Amino acid sequence: MKKMINKPENYVKEMLEGIYAAHPDLVTCTGEDVHCLVTARKKEGKVGIATGGGSGHLPLFLGYVGEGMLDGCSVGDVFQSPSAEQMLAVTKYIDSGAGVLYIYGNYNGDIFNFDMAAEMADFEEDIRVESVVAGEDVASAGPAAPGEKNTRRGVAGIVFVYKCAGAAAADMLPLEEVKRVAEKACANVRTMGVALSPCTVPRVGKPGFAIGEDEMEIGMGIHGEPGIRRGKLEPADQVVTEMMDQIVADLPYQKGDQVAVLVNGLGATPLDEQYIVTRKIDEYLKEKGISVHRYYVGEFATAIEMAGFSISLLKLDEELKKYLDAPARTPFFVQV
Amino acid sequence: MKKMINKPENYVKEMLEGIYAAHPDLVTCTGEDVHCLVTARKKEGKVGIATGGGSGHLPLFLGYVGEGMLDGCSVGDVFQSPSAEQMLAVTKYIDSGAGVLYIYGNYNGDIFNFDMAAEMADFEEDIRVESVVAGEDVASAGPAAPGEKNTRRGVAGIVFVYKCAGAAAADMLPLEEVKRVAEKACANVRTMGVALSPCTVPRVGKPGFAIGEDEMEIGMGIHGEPGIRRGKLEPADQVVTEMMDQIVADLPYQKGDQVAVLVNGLGATPLDEQYIVTRKIDEYLKEKGISVHRYYVGEFATAIEMAGFSISLLKLDEELKKYLDAPARTPFFVQV
Repeated sequence: MKKMINKPENYVKEMLEGIYAAHPDLVTCTGEDVHCLVTARKKEGKVGIATGGGSGHLPLFLGYVGEGMLDGCSVGDVFQSPSAEQMLAVTKYIDSGAGVLYIYGNYNGDIFNFDMAAEMADFEEDIRVESVVAGEDVASAGPAAPGEKNTRRGVAGIVFVYKCAGAAAADMLPLEEVKRVAEKACANVRTMGVALSPCTVPRVGKPGFAIGEDEMEIGMGIHGEPGIRRGKLEPADQVVTEMMDQIVADLPYQKGDQVAVLVNGLGATPLDEQYIVTRKIDEYLKEKGISVHRYYVGEFATAIEMAGFSISLLKLDEELKKYLDAPARTPFFVQV
Repeated sequence: MKKMINKPENYVKEMLEGIYAAHPDLVTCTGEDVHCLVTARKKEGKVGIATGGGSGHLPLFLGYVGEGMLDGCSVGDVFQSPSAEQMLAVTKYIDSGAGVLYIYGNYNGDIFNFDMAAEMADFEEDIRVESVVAGEDVASAGPAAPGEKNTRRGVAGIVFVYKCAGAAAADMLPLEEVKRVAEKACANVRTMGVALSPCTVPRVGKPGFAIGEDEMEIGMGIHGEPGIRRGKLEPADQVVTEMMDQIVADLPYQKGDQVAVLVNGLGATPLDEQYIVTRKIDEYLKEKGISVHRYYVGEFATAIEMAGFSISLLKLDEELKKYLDAPARTPFFVQV
């Protein structure tokens, strides 16, 4: 394990201490527990938005706490859910009477703990909580049948959900409306990833899986969950085309649609490669008659030092476009 | 070589096409040559600032072209200088009568070509050009004696020079004043890096050097130039202390000084680790009585997929602080 760290057991705590040291104008913690990260600029009367999840995915999840996006994040150990108590501490801190919306990824540990935190907030603290669970990885499961539970994993596309819901909350919309916007964003986003190399959880000390020097795995999740196909490494254009075929067919995104595109490096993939991928996505969408309102290219949801990338598309209507374009300022995301 | 690319010979061209596709509101090219990247929002009467250098360092160099920073960048092949003709094309495009300032890193190929471009601009185009060469890597050479040429390599600290000079130009200062601000930033910035793994130039197809699975090299340059010490991997706090000791002693940065700090991932180092490093830098500077005005943490000047990081300090006075804090908006750097 080749990492620039101190003791693996202090990995998350020291990472968080670095974030508090670097960004005191934007984020703070609720009290003694550094794992409960909240905005330093709480706005009275605004719906609070909380997220949470395991570490190892920076900028996810905590990186989007700030102005115009999220208000708080409970931070778990690497690839582990934070506790319901931590989620509750964040909830209490960010509530200012308008209620709190939880937006988090579709993982069992997070669902269990967020559900428990919501109950505690309601019964013990009289805080109204609503939840939106993001799950948009088309490689992880089929689409949910009407009335059925969505079993897809939540990956980088949640950033679009944060952005739109955060802007709606900043516009002082009530809880049910912020929830509606978050659900609309969830319904219109799809993601697929590809991994070229594994990642190592610091406490474990060895890679979570092995992959051949000439192999890639299409559809792999951000914790190394199995993808849909492992094969020889192919040229970028071919890989992008295979991924885009599946993403576009899934919603489906159609001729005349307008979308936002998020190209997300998983940790060790140079920006050069991400832009080579972007070039092909642009060509692909032009051919399909789908117009791109804006691109986001960079690291938005990583898997420690995994090499690879994911592509997320968000279909826009006038409302989502307005919220996507609204300004935001967090330690990891600034838009004017 | 495990990269998500197409043909290695198209690597830079396709990367640039991706950037133009993703950011048409901010950047464009001067004409037929995609390697000549310029702002899409030229401002009449403003001093133009141009940079240039080899590819493989994104966001360097082109990533800082936009509002409040640079106006143009000539882009070379991976780790290769662009040509004087490309630099001249950028110079002609961005000049609007107030002259052009070149700010670039201290590498022989770049110096040779920028000097030639400056001569051509003067004699053939009647454009006044001034140059500032940034070289602040304390591991690469000793400080220049009075009157001697600076032989230090320019690395991530050039971002501070871009930021301050860019803000001075945006304030409509004349060429000699923008140059003075750039030189002041250069004089007050120091950098040191550490590498944990090598990088592979796509056309070469194999790593530029070998380093043991348990080794690091302190002071290595962003093209793999030799550092000052290779040794066993050590805990982050120990590595940071060794680097800070040398950076701080070099200027020297002293008790009572106020600085900006840039923690720069070299390509494959997770943000988690960069913040663990930031935590120790913060502790170190507090102990020295040096206060931090602001931190920048992330990837600012990479070496393709090298693992490792660099630390840059900029000593601030009121003028540099004002220019550092001014707003900027480029595809890779947004500050409000």
